[in-house]
Amino acid sequence: MKRDTPKNVLYAQSGGVSAVINASACGVIETARKHRGKIGKVYAGRHGIVGALTEDLIDTGKESPATIRGLRHTPGGAFGSARYKLAGLDKNRAQYERLIEVFRAHDIGYFFYNGGNDSMDTAHKVSQIGAQMGYPIVCIGVPKTVDNDLAVTDCCPGFGSAAKYIAVATREAGLDVLSMARTSTKVFVLEVMGRHAGWLAAAGGLAGSRASEAPHFLQKVKFCVESYGYCVVVVSEGVRDADGKFLAEAGTKDAFGHAQLGGVGPVVAQMTQEAFGYKFHWAVADYLQRSARHIASKVDVEQAYAVGKAAVEFALKGKNAVMPVIVRKSSSPYRWTIGEAPLSAIANEEKKVPRNFITPDGFGITPACRRYLLPLIGGQDYPPYAKGLPRYVTIKGASVPKRLRSPFVV
Amino acid sequence: MKRDTPKNVLYAQSGGVSAVINASACGVIETARKHRGKIGKVYAGRHGIVGALTEDLIDTGKESPATIRGLRHTPGGAFGSARYKLAGLDKNRAQYERLIEVFRAHDIGYFFYNGGNDSMDTAHKVSQIGAQMGYPIVCIGVPKTVDNDLAVTDCCPGFGSAAKYIAVATREAGLDVLSMARTSTKVFVLEVMGRHAGWLAAAGGLAGSRASEAPHFLQKVKFCVESYGYCVVVVSEGVRDADGKFLAEAGTKDAFGHAQLGGVGPVVAQMTQEAFGYKFHWAVADYLQRSARHIASKVDVEQAYAVGKAAVEFALKGKNAVMPVIVRKSSSPYRWTIGEAPLSAIANEEKKVPRNFITPDGFGITPACRRYLLPLIGGQDYPPYAKGLPRYVTIKGASVPKRLRSPFVV
Repeated sequence: MKRDTPKNVLYAQSGGVSAVINASACGVIETARKHRGKIGKVYAGRHGIVGALTEDLIDTGKESPATIRGLRHTPGGAFGSARYKLAGLDKNRAQYERLIEVFRAHDIGYFFYNGGNDSMDTAHKVSQIGAQMGYPIVCIGVPKTVDNDLAVTDCCPGFGSAAKYIAVATREAGLDVLSMARTSTKVFVLEVMGRHAGWLAAAGGLAGSRASEAPHFLQKVKFCVESYGYCVVVVSEGVRDADGKFLAEAGTKDAFGHAQLGGVGPVVAQMTQEAFGYKFHWAVADYLQRSARHIASKVDVEQAYAVGKAAVEFALKGKNAVMPVIVRKSSSPYRWTIGEAPLSAIANEEKKVPRNFITPDGFGITPACRRYLLPLIGGQDYPPYAKGLPRYVTIKGASVPKRLRSPFVV
Repeated sequence: MKRDTPKNVLYAQSGGVSAVINASACGVIETARKHRGKIGKVYAGRHGIVGALTEDLIDTGKESPATIRGLRHTPGGAFGSARYKLAGLDKNRAQYERLIEVFRAHDIGYFFYNGGNDSMDTAHKVSQIGAQMGYPIVCIGVPKTVDNDLAVTDCCPGFGSAAKYIAVATREAGLDVLSMARTSTKVFVLEVMGRHAGWLAAAGGLAGSRASEAPHFLQKVKFCVESYGYCVVVVSEGVRDADGKFLAEAGTKDAFGHAQLGGVGPVVAQMTQEAFGYKFHWAVADYLQRSARHIASKVDVEQAYAVGKAAVEFALKGKNAVMPVIVRKSSSPYRWTIGEAPLSAIANEEKKVPRNFITPDGFGITPACRRYLLPLIGGQDYPPYAKGLPRYVTIKGASVPKRLRSPFVV
C-alpha cells in the first residue's frame, strides 16, 4: 500500500549559515512542489539534524508560495541550523539508528543535507546505514559554506556573497582611511572569517587592498603608509604566526587572566602601532559578512538556488550519495553549469587557496586569483525593502505531529 | 579691477567622513557651477583646513561634470578630511591670520566648511576674524556627522545612512544568530560608533533588537535568551558603567600590560558569558558603518546634497555665519525642508538622544524614537556597479599654483 504513495523529503540546514542558504532551501522546496506525483511532503528539521534526531520536524507544506519564494532573498537559516556533528558509526551507532527510525516513522525517502564537508560526511554515512538497516534512503548533499573550502566544486554557495561584502567593505573603508590619513588614522585592519582556508581574506584583494599575514607584514605596512599615505589590511581570523600558533591566541590575556577575547584584527592593528606609531582603526565583521543579504552576489544567489533544485532532480533520477557541484566552463565571460560529485569525495576534505593565487610577497592576490574570484561576486540581487529595511520572510514553522513515543536527547 | 571678477570659493571637509559627505561636496560644486557670473573658481582644501593653512588647494574646476556628479555616490572624503581643530582666537591667532592670508592670496570670498560642531565653531571664528582684518569672508557651515549630535537641525547628513547600515546589519545578524542559537551562539553583540550621544546605537532598535547599556543589562540578556532563544545587543562605543567610566577602558589589559585594545563590544559579550555561560559572537563595525555607501539612505543622500546646494544659495543671498539645517515638517508621510541657523547656535553644542526615546528599562527605543528615526533610513540610493563592485569616482586633484612664499607648518 504505502509503496504507492510518494516518499517524503527531509531537508536540513547545517553549520554556520549564510546569506543564501535559504535560496537553496527555496530551490529544494519549489522544485519538489513541481513533482508532487513523485515526491510527497517536504519536511525540514527544526535546527537541522537536531530536529531530525528529536523528531522536531517542520511541515514546509504549510508555508505559502510567497513565503517559500521569499526564502530566496532572506539570510540566515530559516528552519534553524545546528553545529552538531554525528560521531563515527562505530562510536555512536545509536544516533544513526535513531535517524533511520525517524525517517521510517515519517516515510522519509529523501534526505537533503545543506552544509559543508562535515555534513557531507554525515549524509554519506546515513545513506550507508539506511541500506544496512533495510531502510534505503536517498541522501543528496547541498553545498553551503562561506569558507569556500569544499572539494571538487569550483565554488561554494554562500562564499560569493560574503566575498562581495568583504570586497565592497574594503573598498569603502579604504576610501574612508585615505580621507583621514593626513592627520589621523593611517592603518585600517579588517578581520574576516574563513577559518583556515583563507578564501575570504583573498576576497579583500578584489578591492585593491592587501591580504596580509604575520609575521613579516610590518615592512609592507610601512611601505604602504610611506608610499600611499595609508594602508588597509584584510586579515583572516585563522592567521598564524611563524610557529603555527593562531595570532588571536598569541598569549594575550586581559586583566582577569582571561584569554584575549578579540580576534586577530586588533592584534594586527596594534602590531603596526607598536612598530611605527601609526594611528589605527579595526573592524571585525563577524556574522555581518555572512548574513549581508542586502549586498548578495547575484551569481551566488543563482548558484545557491540551482544546487537546491539540482539536489531534487538528482534524487528523482535515482542518484544517491552525491552532491551537485558548480562547474566553471569559462571565467570571461563567466559561464557555469551543475555537475555531480560523490559525497565520499567531498566528506572531510578542505580546499585551501592555492599558492599561485597569492603574490610572492604574501600580501596580495595574483591575476589568476582575481580571474577566479571576480565572477563569483558578479551582479547584485537586492532584496525588496519596506520602510527603509529589507523585507525578509519568517516561516510559520508548523510542527509535524510526532509519531514516535521515545524521546531522544541530543 | 579685481572687484569686478567674482570671488572664489574654498570648500573644506572636516572630521570623520561619511557615506554622503561627498554628496554635499557635489551639491556645493554643482550649484556654484550654475552661478558662474557670481562665483568664481571652486577650490577645495586638500585634507580640509590643513590644505587651507598650507596653501595646498585643489582646483575642482579641473574635474569633469561626470566626476563631480559621481561624488554623489562616492563614500569617504574625496578631497581629504582632517582631524585638526583650530585653537581659540586668543591662543593661536596666527592660524586664523594665516587662513585669511591664504584667502586673500587666492581671492577667496566664500568659505564652505563641511563638518560637525567643532567645524562650525571654526567657521564662525573665521568669519569674525576676516571682518576684523579687513578681509570680509562669507562663512557658511555645511552639516555632516554620523553621530547626529548637531544642535538645531532635525538630523545630520551622514547619520541616516549609518543608521540604515546598522539597522540592516542588526536585522541580518539577528536572523543569523536565531538560526544558530539552538546548539551554538546565543548572544551577538554589535558595537557601533556615535561617541557619547547614542544615536547610532538607537538605530539598532529599528531592527527590532535591543539597545543596551551596562551595568544592568545582564538580566535582560538572560530574559531574551530564555524567552526567544537568543539575544542581539547593539552597544555604543561610548557606553559607560555606573561610575561613568568607559566600559572599553574598564581596566582590562593584555599580557604585555597594554590597555585593552578592543572596544566595548567584546567586553559586553564576555560579560554575558561570565554571567550565564552563553556562547557569543561580536562584531565591531567601525569605519564600515560610516563608509557603507552601498546601503545609503536615499533620504540622507538627498539631504546631504541639499545642504551643500543651500550653502551656496545662502552665500549668494548675502547670508553669513549660518548653516543650513534640516527642518522636519511631518514624520508620516515624511516631509522636510531646509532652514537656517546661526553658526553660533551650533558651535560646540551636542544633541543627545532624549530620555523619552529610550524605554524605561533602558534597553529599547520608544515609538517616538522610531517615528523620528524611520524616515531617516528611508529609500535606497544604490551606486552604479561594474564587475560586482561599486564604481566610485576618484578626483584628479589638480593643485592650485601657490602664491605665497611663506610655508606654514601645521
